[in-house]
Amino acid sequence: MAIISGGFSCSAFRLALPSCSAPSSRLSVSRTRSSGLSASMNSGDEQRARLMEFPYVSGPHRDLMVELLSSVETRLGSSLRPCNLPPDVRHFGHPAGTAYASIQLRPGRPSSQIDFILGGWIHCKFPSGGALNITSLSGYLNSSTDAPNFRLELIQSIPTSLVLVLDLTPRKDLILHPDHLKTYYEDTQLDRYRQRLHALPEVSPYISPSLYVRAAVSPTAILVSIDVGAGETTAIEEIIQDHVGPVAKELLQFWMESCACTERCVGKAERAYLAERDRLIKNKTIELDLGSSFPRLFGQDVADRVLTVLTEHYKK
Amino acid sequence: MAIISGGFSCSAFRLALPSCSAPSSRLSVSRTRSSGLSASMNSGDEQRARLMEFPYVSGPHRDLMVELLSSVETRLGSSLRPCNLPPDVRHFGHPAGTAYASIQLRPGRPSSQIDFILGGWIHCKFPSGGALNITSLSGYLNSSTDAPNFRLELIQSIPTSLVLVLDLTPRKDLILHPDHLKTYYEDTQLDRYRQRLHALPEVSPYISPSLYVRAAVSPTAILVSIDVGAGETTAIEEIIQDHVGPVAKELLQFWMESCACTERCVGKAERAYLAERDRLIKNKTIELDLGSSFPRLFGQDVADRVLTVLTEHYKK
Repeated sequence: MAIISGGFSCSAFRLALPSCSAPSSRLSVSRTRSSGLSASMNSGDEQRARLMEFPYVSGPHRDLMVELLSSVETRLGSSLRPCNLPPDVRHFGHPAGTAYASIQLRPGRPSSQIDFILGGWIHCKFPSGGALNITSLSGYLNSSTDAPNFRLELIQSIPTSLVLVLDLTPRKDLILHPDHLKTYYEDTQLDRYRQRLHALPEVSPYISPSLYVRAAVSPTAILVSIDVGAGETTAIEEIIQDHVGPVAKELLQFWMESCACTERCVGKAERAYLAERDRLIKNKTIELDLGSSFPRLFGQDVADRVLTVLTEHYKK
Repeated sequence: MAIISGGFSCSAFRLALPSCSAPSSRLSVSRTRSSGLSASMNSGDEQRARLMEFPYVSGPHRDLMVELLSSVETRLGSSLRPCNLPPDVRHFGHPAGTAYASIQLRPGRPSSQIDFILGGWIHCKFPSGGALNITSLSGYLNSSTDAPNFRLELIQSIPTSLVLVLDLTPRKDLILHPDHLKTYYEDTQLDRYRQRLHALPEVSPYISPSLYVRAAVSPTAILVSIDVGAGETTAIEEIIQDHVGPVAKELLQFWMESCACTERCVGKAERAYLAERDRLIKNKTIELDLGSSFPRLFGQDVADRVLTVLTEHYKK
């Protein structure tokens, strides 16, 4: 849920967002489905189950997201507090039934290096048919470590094309801190993951229209468009299963072991620097990305409700 | 002459550099041509004339470089001191006659915002025929301003392909200083130049193998490969004339007026920050780029001679 370190980058990636202001008769099934969203779903387990359904994506896409979120729970669960978002912020939709979302935000325990982990999905139906689906997992660390954050997004608006954002976003200026570049990006040979995906003929670089996104990603960031073409035999799902999935799982594993769970020695001045840089990144996320796309997707009232709560977590 | 803010990015761009250790009988003409390089060329005008010859490139490529360097002299000349490089550092070559270079470095006057301007060319013959040609123009500013540096490089190793690097490289961390991103990159709509070139079918993104280069460029950097293919009717020279040239001239004009010649209010702490960041960038340039490629191109003795002098300018 960020333009930088994870989230639903609708505006940052300038996806073709439909106007969601008018209800459509085509959406009655989903409307029914959403009618109980803000009602009695108070149990944490139930809410988690609803998130993990990823009901609007299927096959390898869904399997990958479930596997990634489960990996986080297994490896980092003891370092995380339960999600304490109100039910109507965990699951919400446009009143007209045109868009739905489910998110889970688990803050790190004070003894951990984790600020919070955010996972979720957005589904938005296009008036002309088709839909935008975004699935996302982000990990933000706190200022007790200078290790990078984690960010994964799969953004799909047509069946034959997918935008993938997968990055360990740096938390320091890599020019002023060349040791940081060396430690996390050069010595680790992180670029091999990007190279692996770029070697596929269906993959091309994706250049975000947001200059801020371009400035914030790491030099090994995977920002790619995967296009199979209507007549091709290779489906997007196959590429997720054979290529995107293995890369995403390896990168998440690396991030959890070497970033989230490896202790770093960070001095007082450096902590202040990290805290300030993190604050700016999270502010930008709320202001530029979510603040711009959520009202369009979910209507102003719902967006206000959700953003008010998320802002507390992002800006604290 | 930098991997970041201008120069001959042989190693940073991992071009196919030939081994220049063995002389080749094919190079006798050029060897003769170079034999007087370190001799009697002491007049500044003569040395300038030799630089401006750009003898190994022709047509629109040569015309563009001459025009750009002339523009700098016209607009910034009164802010610059003469080039004070020794003659055998202004023009030098491999003892075996396999590679030549010509550079001009003009320091800024103390009253100006300019650190130095560097222009030049490198020519390196391949043992198998063909040659690598790099032409370059860079402008470094000093810490009295926080405006970006200028960097242009045209790198050509085969007739049907060209790598273009054209950027206003940021001198601040754009995440910690979002006002800098806004002032120089967003409000100025600098990205339109990149978009203009990317719209050409012959142009594709160029991903530098150096993570440092990727981290150092701006979000509007033009790092592209221009490939016309052997059978195409459009020549590289046409693309330089019709597209690269106009964009390069406009960007240089913008840089001279809005960066080099527009005064900025920079406080003491900010000056120290800029000076330290600039120092790191220039160190990296000498260590990683020139220090790695020059010995291979020109032999260790010549490289040592040139790098010793350049280091004084880069590290002061």
